[in-house]
Amino acid sequence: MDIAQIAKLNMPYAVRDMNPKELTELAEAVRGGIIETVSKNGGHLASSLGCVELTVAMLKVFDLTKDHIIWDVGHQSYAYKLLTGRAESFGTLRRKDGLSGFPKPRESAFDAYATGHSGSGVSAAFGMASADALKGSDAKSVVVIGDASFSNGMVFEALNSIGNSKKNLVIILNDNGRSIAKNHGAFARYLLRTRTRMSYYNTKKRVERFFRAMGVFGKPFIAFLNRIKRLLKAMLLPTTMFESLGVEYLGPINGHNIEETVAVLKRAQRMNKPVLVHVATVKGKGYEPAASAPESFHGVSGFDVDTGKVNGGSGGSFSSAFGEALTALAEKDERICAVTAAMTAGTGLKLFKEKFPARFFDVGIAEEHGVSFCCGLAAQGMKPVFAVYSAFLQRAYDQLLIEAAFQKLPVVFAVDRAGVVGEDGETHQGLFDAAYLTEIPGMTVFAPAFRDELGIMHGEALALDTPSAVRYPRGGEGARPEGYSYRGGAYGYEERGSVLAVTYGRLYAELRAAIDAEKLPVSVLKLNRIKPLELPAEAMKYDRIVFFEEGVKTGGIAGQTLAKLNSEGWRGEFTVRAVEDEFVPHSTVKEALAGLGLDREGMAALLKETLGR
Amino acid sequence: MDIAQIAKLNMPYAVRDMNPKELTELAEAVRGGIIETVSKNGGHLASSLGCVELTVAMLKVFDLTKDHIIWDVGHQSYAYKLLTGRAESFGTLRRKDGLSGFPKPRESAFDAYATGHSGSGVSAAFGMASADALKGSDAKSVVVIGDASFSNGMVFEALNSIGNSKKNLVIILNDNGRSIAKNHGAFARYLLRTRTRMSYYNTKKRVERFFRAMGVFGKPFIAFLNRIKRLLKAMLLPTTMFESLGVEYLGPINGHNIEETVAVLKRAQRMNKPVLVHVATVKGKGYEPAASAPESFHGVSGFDVDTGKVNGGSGGSFSSAFGEALTALAEKDERICAVTAAMTAGTGLKLFKEKFPARFFDVGIAEEHGVSFCCGLAAQGMKPVFAVYSAFLQRAYDQLLIEAAFQKLPVVFAVDRAGVVGEDGETHQGLFDAAYLTEIPGMTVFAPAFRDELGIMHGEALALDTPSAVRYPRGGEGARPEGYSYRGGAYGYEERGSVLAVTYGRLYAELRAAIDAEKLPVSVLKLNRIKPLELPAEAMKYDRIVFFEEGVKTGGIAGQTLAKLNSEGWRGEFTVRAVEDEFVPHSTVKEALAGLGLDREGMAALLKETLGR
Repeated sequence: MDIAQIAKLNMPYAVRDMNPKELTELAEAVRGGIIETVSKNGGHLASSLGCVELTVAMLKVFDLTKDHIIWDVGHQSYAYKLLTGRAESFGTLRRKDGLSGFPKPRESAFDAYATGHSGSGVSAAFGMASADALKGSDAKSVVVIGDASFSNGMVFEALNSIGNSKKNLVIILNDNGRSIAKNHGAFARYLLRTRTRMSYYNTKKRVERFFRAMGVFGKPFIAFLNRIKRLLKAMLLPTTMFESLGVEYLGPINGHNIEETVAVLKRAQRMNKPVLVHVATVKGKGYEPAASAPESFHGVSGFDVDTGKVNGGSGGSFSSAFGEALTALAEKDERICAVTAAMTAGTGLKLFKEKFPARFFDVGIAEEHGVSFCCGLAAQGMKPVFAVYSAFLQRAYDQLLIEAAFQKLPVVFAVDRAGVVGEDGETHQGLFDAAYLTEIPGMTVFAPAFRDELGIMHGEALALDTPSAVRYPRGGEGARPEGYSYRGGAYGYEERGSVLAVTYGRLYAELRAAIDAEKLPVSVLKLNRIKPLELPAEAMKYDRIVFFEEGVKTGGIAGQTLAKLNSEGWRGEFTVRAVEDEFVPHSTVKEALAGLGLDREGMAALLKETLGR
Repeated sequence: MDIAQIAKLNMPYAVRDMNPKELTELAEAVRGGIIETVSKNGGHLASSLGCVELTVAMLKVFDLTKDHIIWDVGHQSYAYKLLTGRAESFGTLRRKDGLSGFPKPRESAFDAYATGHSGSGVSAAFGMASADALKGSDAKSVVVIGDASFSNGMVFEALNSIGNSKKNLVIILNDNGRSIAKNHGAFARYLLRTRTRMSYYNTKKRVERFFRAMGVFGKPFIAFLNRIKRLLKAMLLPTTMFESLGVEYLGPINGHNIEETVAVLKRAQRMNKPVLVHVATVKGKGYEPAASAPESFHGVSGFDVDTGKVNGGSGGSFSSAFGEALTALAEKDERICAVTAAMTAGTGLKLFKEKFPARFFDVGIAEEHGVSFCCGLAAQGMKPVFAVYSAFLQRAYDQLLIEAAFQKLPVVFAVDRAGVVGEDGETHQGLFDAAYLTEIPGMTVFAPAFRDELGIMHGEALALDTPSAVRYPRGGEGARPEGYSYRGGAYGYEERGSVLAVTYGRLYAELRAAIDAEKLPVSVLKLNRIKPLELPAEAMKYDRIVFFEEGVKTGGIAGQTLAKLNSEGWRGEFTVRAVEDEFVPHSTVKEALAGLGLDREGMAALLKETLGR
């Protein structure tokens, strides 16, 4: 079987009629299809390979004419996409106008929920199950959640509501024993113990039988034992953390054994109450390079299938510049700590971790806790730097506000993946941080345009005794304009014409390139710091200002700049090109910026139009 | 002993030298002081009374020259404030320039951390303990956390990091078996079982002794039992959920017995690893009216000590108008569901809960889960309304953004306590929602000025098939201007002069009063809807516009209005009076608005100044 053949079947329904042999063949075909497409398009390989058999088993058991399947987090859903009518288009995965790398209800009715950030799937599934109960529907809500996602606090909040609720809900804990990096949290250790306790479920049954069998012993002995028995029995049930919270537990099972998985899922399917199925899987299963180095194959840009050699390198990225700069700063100041939420490699912190293990903290996928933890460190004299992706920091908006900012604690937020991120799409774009960070009282926000500035600005940020953020994009820096050098201060101003163009961050290189290529008579204001906002007096003399912003227009820095100018008496024409009231879909970064009119050509066109008026 | 005498002692250190009798007397004096002050100033009575003895015991055991005490959530800290050098000023509690109702490091060095929202305390304490470990300090980080706060996901995230960390951390679980309302969550039930299992801790010890004692039986029998023994032993440890996560467990203990509490805290103090002490307390302990109706005495405005009659009523508040309106709407549309995060009474949902119990959901203090749960309900055809305080919705910023808005799900956010909230201070002010809600793509945001508008706007919101918010203030409505009636649409416009004043929400009544009282020649634009922003064409003809906003200036609606006007060619003078880059401290709402220049007098003065130019 291959992908072309799968495309011809009546999916997902055809899976229900397959026999064990066919299911195994199907799984192999799916695995091959995933490896092939991801090797070309890039994507989340290791997680997707880990749940191929599980996906096949789910489609065998659940009824997709009515049941709802949720993937938490969504990048495990490649096999599911292939098997729910998207085999033909699977080659377009993560490409502009092609399939999204995450579930997306607007892409397919089989995608019940869009899950880009970890931990929300159980809550959403419980919402669906509650709706079904109100409607009198017997549909199942099924959520597959990775063990790393499971450590996010939202899951605990959801379990707290779900326990004993009698709702029609199956939680499949896809436990591969690692998050993106190796998972060291207490919950991961707990799962490991549960998993390695040789067939926990059978053990429990055996103990129960033992107590029944004790009846065969003589009376006096029984009398003695009975007291102990009551005592022990009370402790036997409930036994797992999940049962303690009122959720039935089944497992652990081998998630690569389709028959075993089908059997247990069927059992879960028949229970009319919340049940958790603990499935052990191997990340990268079936593709040796991914299985032996799952972190390298978590999110890849593409690779050679035969050699397993991953495309490109992260050399020259802002993330690596951050890691190097912070490590250098930490050599001189032993108060500096680095904190990550399960993104050690992604944020460039591997070097720091090696050099300063005691000052390095991975809090797991738990941004809220991460920020409060940093605040605690700062309150006792440390200088914590929380390296976090812009989109994920959204999870900790409240903690930023009322813990870091209200208490004026000197936490530095190294906000990676600020701006357009590309192929991961809507849920991963970093288009909001400029707006929401600058609204927070007392924050200082830096926006480096080049890698060397990033390092210098982290130095400036760490010298503050109040909270600050340094925000920078995914990937590498743009071409450095001739003669440009960073001189510090809130802004850089270059006078060259009758129109003033303003921007910050990565766009600066493109803006200068646009202006320089055609020698446009346009002055440039580069904001190094977007909060507190400081503008040169010269800005007042322009009657036309154009602001380019790689972030949301509403509440963004452009609007803040206009407000400041107006309050100082400026009355000119202020044109803003930024992200309008919409989410930006997946594509390459280049394509996304072009679509927003924020690439070189788009900026040049707007400037020429402005000059022509 | 009384408060005046406590004020004379060398607090908190004097507690360490007190004998059991003195400790008991001290606790009684503290309790009396709390009742007296809260009866006058209002405040969080029931929670505070529940931990008087616990506080005394903590100050007996811990060394406040170095240890850090954190209260989660902070409204339990009244006794602590009284006993840490603030007895003399305790009468100023929650009053302007007086003591805050929450811990505040700037108020006292004994307040290690500001805790206004639930669940962050354990994370912060772990941060402090980690800092101490790096500094080589043997200080203890101690966090007292209520059982309702404990159900917030942040705590699970923190435990995941803390387990087996060997850090110097004591978590005191103050378990009174209820959140603000009665706590029905699975975790609460778990705690109840743990608490009622007669002295769990001793049981465990007894079982261990039994296995050691089994050696006295004959060999053949032992051989048989040994297999069982290994099996059972594996199940005996760890036994509580906390131990499963690598945190030592002590308890449960009676938190009103000072001697018992001191003894167990001493034991926890000696352990050099994370330990959780489970303390059972009674909310409202020692004041009968509060103990029998703890929800009424959760946050009170003041009460008569002798009769227990609570001051004022919530009649006429926006919250009650919301509850009535939503219940009426739900009568006609059975898809409407109401969701609260442990604020049934506060948000006015008691009536809805009684009438439609199946469609009412209390998710506990778990705003993140709450929003995702609503999204799940909406994805399956329900019309959920999440009633939540503005400041607490900050916790779910990410879920609002990438779940509700990205998926365009028709969830209605009933954002209560928007704007200045008064006595609870900085962490409870609702000054950010107008900015961050309007930045979210595709949201619709309504801002009623009067109670009847709130109901109508909820009807409009529920008719949408995309996410929306209706934001309204704490308390009652202002005076309705003569001749004013709500006519629907995005705005109301009244032409009366040469200057245009713009506002939205509660301020409208005050603005009209300011204008009407002195017959100022000022036109008024009242925004009914702050997103999508729509302005009357007439606005373009004014050369001076003044915007009054009860929210942050940066990113707020004023700036968005200017941006829109400028983009349409307007070039006038735009004056903004809003909340500058700062947090607004506690006081009455009236005092806070006056301090911000947003009361009647402040607005009139700015308008007259503008008219005079």
